[in-house]
Amino acid sequence: MTFSAPEKATHSTMKRTTVRLADGRELIYFDRDENADRGAADRRDLPPRPPAAELRRDPLTGEWIAIAGHRQGRTLLPPADQCPLCPSAPGRPTEIPAAGYEVAVFENRFPSFSASAPDDGAADPGGLGETRPAAGRCEVVCFTADHDASFSTLPPDRVELVMRAWADRTAELSALPGVEQVFCFENRGAEIGITLGHPHGQIYAYPYVTPRTRRMLAVARAHRERGGGDLFAEVLAAERKAEVRVVGRNEHWTAFVPAAARWPFEVHLYPHRRVPDLCALEPAERAAFGPLYTDVLRRFDGLFGVAMPYVAAWHQAPVREGRDLACLHLELFSIRRAADRLKYLAGSESAMGAFVNDVLPEEAARMLREAVTN
Amino acid sequence: MTFSAPEKATHSTMKRTTVRLADGRELIYFDRDENADRGAADRRDLPPRPPAAELRRDPLTGEWIAIAGHRQGRTLLPPADQCPLCPSAPGRPTEIPAAGYEVAVFENRFPSFSASAPDDGAADPGGLGETRPAAGRCEVVCFTADHDASFSTLPPDRVELVMRAWADRTAELSALPGVEQVFCFENRGAEIGITLGHPHGQIYAYPYVTPRTRRMLAVARAHRERGGGDLFAEVLAAERKAEVRVVGRNEHWTAFVPAAARWPFEVHLYPHRRVPDLCALEPAERAAFGPLYTDVLRRFDGLFGVAMPYVAAWHQAPVREGRDLACLHLELFSIRRAADRLKYLAGSESAMGAFVNDVLPEEAARMLREAVTN
Repeated sequence: MTFSAPEKATHSTMKRTTVRLADGRELIYFDRDENADRGAADRRDLPPRPPAAELRRDPLTGEWIAIAGHRQGRTLLPPADQCPLCPSAPGRPTEIPAAGYEVAVFENRFPSFSASAPDDGAADPGGLGETRPAAGRCEVVCFTADHDASFSTLPPDRVELVMRAWADRTAELSALPGVEQVFCFENRGAEIGITLGHPHGQIYAYPYVTPRTRRMLAVARAHRERGGGDLFAEVLAAERKAEVRVVGRNEHWTAFVPAAARWPFEVHLYPHRRVPDLCALEPAERAAFGPLYTDVLRRFDGLFGVAMPYVAAWHQAPVREGRDLACLHLELFSIRRAADRLKYLAGSESAMGAFVNDVLPEEAARMLREAVTN
Repeated sequence: MTFSAPEKATHSTMKRTTVRLADGRELIYFDRDENADRGAADRRDLPPRPPAAELRRDPLTGEWIAIAGHRQGRTLLPPADQCPLCPSAPGRPTEIPAAGYEVAVFENRFPSFSASAPDDGAADPGGLGETRPAAGRCEVVCFTADHDASFSTLPPDRVELVMRAWADRTAELSALPGVEQVFCFENRGAEIGITLGHPHGQIYAYPYVTPRTRRMLAVARAHRERGGGDLFAEVLAAERKAEVRVVGRNEHWTAFVPAAARWPFEVHLYPHRRVPDLCALEPAERAAFGPLYTDVLRRFDGLFGVAMPYVAAWHQAPVREGRDLACLHLELFSIRRAADRLKYLAGSESAMGAFVNDVLPEEAARMLREAVTN
């Protein structure tokens, strides 16, 4: 089995319109309506874009750290009636010039990774590590124009459109010079630092393979070299067989709490057919994802009757390496471990990478299966 | 150069008294006063200790996750006037039966790792990973009987006594069956989940080498195999030479912000002589640590005029492997990045292990050097 680089798929109708914001950033509208008018211009007076951040390699771990000093100065996000992700209205321009939209993606104004020229003032920091510009790109993905919605309430056809936008961005960003991995994710909830309530996610196009992905690929490679098969497929098969941690499934996807969950409530969603990334999903697979995933999200919110803070992380194969080993899947997890308690990453996790999970995965799965959804 | 396993050092006078708490847990008093009376008995009626937690290996990363379901039931910690780490008083028994103490260490009542027999009811969880009992031990270290103190206000001789307690525990815990790494640390601040204000730290005796240590040892080993020297010594030398990130130093220790800091405010303290662990420090080195470290801690608190949440993590060589590669050092970091803002570990860090730091390390070092200390 061979895999080529991420490629754009073309299936049913989707209109894609690219415009430039006032400071030169790209904004891309994704519409099912072929007649959507996307001609509105951004007339704001925006400051120039910040210089690129810097990558520094930690000599003790070999890992790259992005040092983005310019982000420290970013404005605290404004109140809901000045939400920058809502469509623009007369006298109230936002990041999205149109008066309405379905799905909109734009370059982050304060990116951790960007193609901007590095700040010439940056001196050699000394020390033992290497440095280089933090090339790459960071994008914001608006899932809906409805400020008060959430991913869990998106209708299936909207989830499909979001998935096509993710696939489009994965293919485009993978083609940028120096990009090695494209990461589509959603952070949700004030408890993990989100102060912007509008339903949105982010995309990081990294100029390196991230530590967790690198680790997974090394383990999958070692498994194959020891005579094992496809590690991700074997994990999926074992969880489907064990059944006790399965939260939901349909023809194309299975959602389960992993046996060695790191987080109190953690669910992984795997497609039954192994594919390297979102670009490789067939229309039927894409269509089947939304109903299962939004059901899991509603179960999260039903656990304690409060909106759960969560991170939803798409694991995709890197652009160049390990494409025959990696397997597209979504890892969803929450830091809430009870109605009134959060899981904090303190000494053991933050300093040593050693996780302690206070919720038995089988119990988490049972609670999720029994959760009341609205 | 060869290194043997961690060994108890014997230097100046220190009295060490071990007693048993009502449920069988060990409590060890460390006193400079040879006449300290440590005979008080624990007369509380305590429930039996919980069964051992379970270790599960994540098949996709090879890492061990401790699943400690019994901890979920642990009581929320009580208000300050019922602090379980204060000395006992008539009618108010605490975890420490004595009416006063200098430094006291006891086994955690809700441990992530313990020598208790595993719960026989634990069924095979299925899935692809291995499981085994979470052997090891978790201890609580009370730095002072003064509820309102903090590590930063401890006098030098008390810091020395704490260091001798850490060294004692490192040697003892290293000798327990199955223990592979001993981690002494302090979590401080409600922002990272601490609800117990009494100045205390913890010790985890892990039954495996933690992921971050394993990674550092692999990098140091590869560096040596490529013809390099001692990686930790080279990092220290390079930071001392670059100077711009040095926060403080004395004859035996240097404190610096690492060039590739992961956290907004992060300081590493290295002894100038490379030793594998706390047990190997000479009395002069031990004596020199406290004044420098507490000065750095006071600078942390002086940055924004508020008590900084922090994790202080002693990196020690594992018990059996890599003892010729590892180098004792302390990694101190805070999640506070501004007076009114925290650094949250969201998608990039939590899901992918890819850190973005919004504070330039040279700027962090300058701010710490200029911070007003009280």
